[in-house]
Amino acid sequence: MGSYSRAAFLAVGSELLRTSRLDTNSLLVAPKLLARGVELVEKRCVPDDAAAIARAVEELLGRGELVLVSGGLGPTADDVTREGVAQALGRKLVRDQGLLAALAERYRRLGRPVPAIAARMAELVEGCQVLPNPRGTAPGMWLDVGAKAVVLLPGVPEELETILELHVLPRVQGRELVVRTLKVGGRFESEVEQRVQHLYQRFGREKVTILAGRGVVDLVLLAEGPGELAAMEEAFAAVLGEDLFGRDETSLPEAVLAACRNRGFLLATAESCTGGLVGALLTQVPGASEVYVGGVVAYANPLKTRLLGVSEALLAQVGAVSREVAEAMALGACRLGAQCGLGITGIAGPGGGSAEKPVGTVHMAVATPTRLVHRMVRFGGSRNTVRELAANFALDLVRRTVREG
Amino acid sequence: MGSYSRAAFLAVGSELLRTSRLDTNSLLVAPKLLARGVELVEKRCVPDDAAAIARAVEELLGRGELVLVSGGLGPTADDVTREGVAQALGRKLVRDQGLLAALAERYRRLGRPVPAIAARMAELVEGCQVLPNPRGTAPGMWLDVGAKAVVLLPGVPEELETILELHVLPRVQGRELVVRTLKVGGRFESEVEQRVQHLYQRFGREKVTILAGRGVVDLVLLAEGPGELAAMEEAFAAVLGEDLFGRDETSLPEAVLAACRNRGFLLATAESCTGGLVGALLTQVPGASEVYVGGVVAYANPLKTRLLGVSEALLAQVGAVSREVAEAMALGACRLGAQCGLGITGIAGPGGGSAEKPVGTVHMAVATPTRLVHRMVRFGGSRNTVRELAANFALDLVRRTVREG
Repeated sequence: MGSYSRAAFLAVGSELLRTSRLDTNSLLVAPKLLARGVELVEKRCVPDDAAAIARAVEELLGRGELVLVSGGLGPTADDVTREGVAQALGRKLVRDQGLLAALAERYRRLGRPVPAIAARMAELVEGCQVLPNPRGTAPGMWLDVGAKAVVLLPGVPEELETILELHVLPRVQGRELVVRTLKVGGRFESEVEQRVQHLYQRFGREKVTILAGRGVVDLVLLAEGPGELAAMEEAFAAVLGEDLFGRDETSLPEAVLAACRNRGFLLATAESCTGGLVGALLTQVPGASEVYVGGVVAYANPLKTRLLGVSEALLAQVGAVSREVAEAMALGACRLGAQCGLGITGIAGPGGGSAEKPVGTVHMAVATPTRLVHRMVRFGGSRNTVRELAANFALDLVRRTVREG
Repeated sequence: MGSYSRAAFLAVGSELLRTSRLDTNSLLVAPKLLARGVELVEKRCVPDDAAAIARAVEELLGRGELVLVSGGLGPTADDVTREGVAQALGRKLVRDQGLLAALAERYRRLGRPVPAIAARMAELVEGCQVLPNPRGTAPGMWLDVGAKAVVLLPGVPEELETILELHVLPRVQGRELVVRTLKVGGRFESEVEQRVQHLYQRFGREKVTILAGRGVVDLVLLAEGPGELAAMEEAFAAVLGEDLFGRDETSLPEAVLAACRNRGFLLATAESCTGGLVGALLTQVPGASEVYVGGVVAYANPLKTRLLGVSEALLAQVGAVSREVAEAMALGACRLGAQCGLGITGIAGPGGGSAEKPVGTVHMAVATPTRLVHRMVRFGGSRNTVRELAANFALDLVRRTVREG
């Protein structure tokens, strides 16, 4: 077994550069490598061009010990990965008689003659070890290059994944690494960064990645073993306190539904500026119906009155975007048949703002049998940014309110 | 205006290498560049590491005349694109007092103090032209490097897109090409492909790209001049007929709202399986409130009865996922104060399916003063794929029903 701690991934295919096709193979590969302690240090896409492939392979051999190349192993004229890699390594292509016979047999079974071009798939880069492909025609290749390796894999995702599992991962073992993602709700990225910054020095800057979603901040911790990970996790969790809503794959809607379930609460929503987005997020979770009964999208004021019981007088007096209306909406949501109600009203923009209530002003309120909690935030950014931030901050307010009793 | 025919794209972000996050910014960029005759010749992802960024920029300047770098311009310690690019070009970073003042003003308006780390966003690579960012905090930068250029753009997609449109595309011109996107609703990609296939031969396969969204299919036509484009557009539009809902940047929710507005209809929604997604899509459009009054997320059956008047007997008799209930929901939505009501009910999965009503079965109905239209579709894919397809097919049913009178 070789020692490979850094890997680079090269996706070959002109279609990856022209249209809306993305290289998704690297997503299959990255977590599997990481679990073996091998970190992906670079990804690239190049067109079906032998010179471009050759140059990329040469450069990527300078980046890591393992270079994975995906795609361009088929029979057609634009499948030139074999040529490009041979060129990069200064090797020849040799036709393998065994592979040729296997190809002929495969086509015979399909009742079709072997197309002339298919013979290209029996060409191997000199000195390679063939990685059999149980799901397709073109095999993979493993090429030792001194202490490093270049591995060629088919571009079809399930063929790539199978060869990776069967023939590549068993040969690869880097540094043991363990990963944990801490999920933070109801805070902006810069707030989180300021609070955890002092821990960067303690554990090493390169071991922490901070990722801002729309209203959810991920802190990705990378440790060299379970002991270090536990120490990191404990230190970060202590600083984050109540803002930490989950770990790894936990989503904010999942955390909200779990918090309600723990208290035996059903949940209902009353949305204005988010227009249904909170409901859409909650119902992404399979089984949401056990907790979430639904709600009202009260985009126009008459619906706030009619379905949620927000009084016309209140709307006239304080305006739809106000603490009072958010609270009345939350209480109205409870009356739909839930112990917990969320109300959210705001100005998503681009129009509708005023000096007193600028675009981005959002009031949210959560009602439970014992509490009525309000939060106002001014979000920056486009209409959709404001809406997504508002939806996630509102979900987080539900989580905190329900959890705190 | 410079002459740039080959571009390279560099996405910066450790999360793009470690986790399941993909660089989708290159997808925003590629077609827009192509429309200006600029071809993308390479894409890369590197981690938040100044040395890796520097090396990539140096190498990519050897690949094309234009190097676009996305991400790593934020305030946090791992945002090091500025440093990496400065290093690649042998330039310094300089703090810009004007930007610093603008930052302070931005935070003041949001009612938050300027975090100390935010000042990093006022640092510029020496000799750059600032590309203002109307949607966010960190500006882009344009750096001439001899006859070539390096352009730094924020990683947030809409900020990147806006700066690209406002400040980058106008400076870039390769071969003259004209592009038109035809937007198709309520059809699957394979259906559209089969119907337009014969036109590929007539105009050239490489001039047509078919892109499947979730329930919206884009046909991108690329022509060498307005004459050819007009001929292509006419031929494709004739084949697509009523399925064509718009062109270029028109979104399906925009087309739906416009169709309602043209008829003088207000619109309301009654959603079950989509849980608010239809409302969220409609309210993405600024000014949606002129047409969309809101609706009900009737996730639990009691809400269908209480807020939409769907009878308990009907629910017991035919089940919530049925033509009859979809129609009753559409009529119930109208009674919320709209001339057009949409009802949607289905089984998003993964659980809840049966032999008779498998996962993916969705009933949608649209009611207007003169019509009650129903459509049932069985969608394949995950829970979220089913929900997104269902929401868009339902929106498209509103568009057709309202348009056809």
